[in-house]
Amino acid sequence: MARVNEHYLKLKASYLFSEIARRVKAFQAAHPEAKTIRLGIGDVTQPLPPAVIAALHGAVNDMAHAETFRGYGPEPGYEFLAELIAAHDYASRGVKVAVDEIFVSDGAKSDTGNIQEIFSLDSAVALTDPVYPVYLDSNVMAGRAGEVGDDGRYDRVVYLPCVAENGFEPPLPDRPVDLVYLCFPNNPTGAVLSRAALGRWVHWARHHGAVLLYDAAYEAYIRENDVPHSIYEIEGAREVAIEFRSFSKTAGFTGTRCAFTVVPKDLQGHDARGRPVGLNALWLRRQSTKFNGAPYVVQRGAAAVYTDAGKSQVRALVDYYMDNARIIREGLQAAGLTVFGGRNAPYIWVRTPDGLSSWDFFDKLLAEAHVVGTPGSGFGPSGEGYFRLTAFGRRDQTEEAVERIKTRLAL
Amino acid sequence: MARVNEHYLKLKASYLFSEIARRVKAFQAAHPEAKTIRLGIGDVTQPLPPAVIAALHGAVNDMAHAETFRGYGPEPGYEFLAELIAAHDYASRGVKVAVDEIFVSDGAKSDTGNIQEIFSLDSAVALTDPVYPVYLDSNVMAGRAGEVGDDGRYDRVVYLPCVAENGFEPPLPDRPVDLVYLCFPNNPTGAVLSRAALGRWVHWARHHGAVLLYDAAYEAYIRENDVPHSIYEIEGAREVAIEFRSFSKTAGFTGTRCAFTVVPKDLQGHDARGRPVGLNALWLRRQSTKFNGAPYVVQRGAAAVYTDAGKSQVRALVDYYMDNARIIREGLQAAGLTVFGGRNAPYIWVRTPDGLSSWDFFDKLLAEAHVVGTPGSGFGPSGEGYFRLTAFGRRDQTEEAVERIKTRLAL
Repeated sequence: MARVNEHYLKLKASYLFSEIARRVKAFQAAHPEAKTIRLGIGDVTQPLPPAVIAALHGAVNDMAHAETFRGYGPEPGYEFLAELIAAHDYASRGVKVAVDEIFVSDGAKSDTGNIQEIFSLDSAVALTDPVYPVYLDSNVMAGRAGEVGDDGRYDRVVYLPCVAENGFEPPLPDRPVDLVYLCFPNNPTGAVLSRAALGRWVHWARHHGAVLLYDAAYEAYIRENDVPHSIYEIEGAREVAIEFRSFSKTAGFTGTRCAFTVVPKDLQGHDARGRPVGLNALWLRRQSTKFNGAPYVVQRGAAAVYTDAGKSQVRALVDYYMDNARIIREGLQAAGLTVFGGRNAPYIWVRTPDGLSSWDFFDKLLAEAHVVGTPGSGFGPSGEGYFRLTAFGRRDQTEEAVERIKTRLAL
Repeated sequence: MARVNEHYLKLKASYLFSEIARRVKAFQAAHPEAKTIRLGIGDVTQPLPPAVIAALHGAVNDMAHAETFRGYGPEPGYEFLAELIAAHDYASRGVKVAVDEIFVSDGAKSDTGNIQEIFSLDSAVALTDPVYPVYLDSNVMAGRAGEVGDDGRYDRVVYLPCVAENGFEPPLPDRPVDLVYLCFPNNPTGAVLSRAALGRWVHWARHHGAVLLYDAAYEAYIRENDVPHSIYEIEGAREVAIEFRSFSKTAGFTGTRCAFTVVPKDLQGHDARGRPVGLNALWLRRQSTKFNGAPYVVQRGAAAVYTDAGKSQVRALVDYYMDNARIIREGLQAAGLTVFGGRNAPYIWVRTPDGLSSWDFFDKLLAEAHVVGTPGSGFGPSGEGYFRLTAFGRRDQTEEAVERIKTRLAL
């Protein structure tokens, strides 16, 4: 008799964004006249840059003729793209990443969800709290999280609270931990780690033989000089860190799907007898066995991001969203709310007023301003009492949402 | 200290196709003048159909304007595509599959590799032998396969030999089994199951509470009437089977990446206490957590396969490859080789002559005819003494390969 993976049954009832969709749908059914504005899910709204569009059309034409048609590509991605990544994302910052350390994929969600597969099921996992739900859920599903308690915490996971009181900088684990998920610029808090703070993490990981799973999907939003764009800017990080990047929030690829993961060849895990095992080879095996590469057309589109035109168009896109971030941040502050993030990240992290719970504030914001955000508690226990807004909306909608919050929200 | 998933270390040294690539590279380095023809990997060579190209261009244009831009899509795929699949692939054959039973993805390799995640690690797995390596390797990596013996067999896997002596029809398992991977039309043998034979499998699975993982990626190649295109054509299959389909070999999507998996809502696994758990919901959760949907542009391209123009263009593509299959089959028979498959499938399964091993015949074919095929033993122990050729080559190359085999191969 076929038995299911019972770890799935330990997942909390619904994925955060499904629950939001459910509540919005119910609200809209009850108030068909209300014009809701969604600043909840981190989805972009601006079209793909013209350089990307041109490259996509060009690649579609390649697929129309036998001479230029592309069938199966290399599972880790085409070299034409990996070489551009190595040069523009890394070498330009003085960081050496080899082409065969870069694994192009269909998304950072897939990669950050799948990376745990190459580690032992016994691994102790630490997560910042609040956190992007995929890191936790993928470990729950694999059985590493243990059982969930009444406080919403899984008993085998080490939670690293990131709250206003510690400046949203995760404390180093006080227990032995094998894997640590870090995301900076952070989703959902919008916080960043300074060079010194990230250096402390690399030092800690080297000392404890831990692996840092570093999600840098939002690095393009960094504005301050002292904030590293890549963890490999830190000396010694190649021996302890895997880095995730994405074209989603940089170049508008949320519906086009392209990302990449860097697994340095210097990075090793260990087998049960303590013998070193290279993680680059394990990830290559994982991707070669269960993935067939990102579409050729999409990889050509991603490559166009690195042309001169593409670069300046992407910069303009990021600037557009960062102007939204400023509008939200300043508007909410003017409305009397306490606001974090939004300076090096497209996320604005709001303290809920009057001690409201995150979901109560969600309902209040929806009911009074018809604005959809994301309850902080959806990202973990330490997100309770916070609320996330994103800068990815259209300008007019962002401005209207802020105006409504200022004028309609009873604070 | 970070420990690796040691099950990865139980995988045989290299993925079949990597080893082939290595040998071909070595041969070409030693014989730079040789013009090798690759009829090994099952990769298509003909361009995408014009209807698909037009749809891709149209969708790229959608992505260029804010009004028509698409960000994150639904993880299980757009309804516009799922509705076409339900109508054209199923309803047209009298099979009822609901839109929310269809999960669009980036490939049948991903889906057949990932599906095992929703089942218990204790599950007993049966595989036809020879078999598409992904079914086995994904279970080795998860720890369900056990240890590999000197005979190349993993001790926890139930092998179902498919050889000339049983007409390549897998025998029903003689031991308790929870999950059975079946692929028909078969890769690599090119065999099909008749309606009666598939009915026996469905009956067996219902009786034993097993789940059939049915890979129908090659259904478009079926020519004979008595061969079901979908397992759901068999009464009762909705309660025991998951079906995998792909646009790769049908419409030339190997480098464009689109496929789908059907998980009927009638299909249930069980938890440890024997309570039923719906597999549709588990797969939805898996895909929603670790996957972000296939690219919008690609899904528009796939939808064009179901237009009148798309359908006739795809039929022409399949006819083209099936003519190749006939040329290979007849040519090899004329050369005195014993040949199977190639009638309802794009694969030709050759008995190696003179008791040669599969790899010895690989080397012989490469050395004497400069033709690259795939050693049968790479697909499993029962593939030893066989060899796979594919019909996906260009016509001129296929004809030349067959001519060389007829004239240069010393038999």
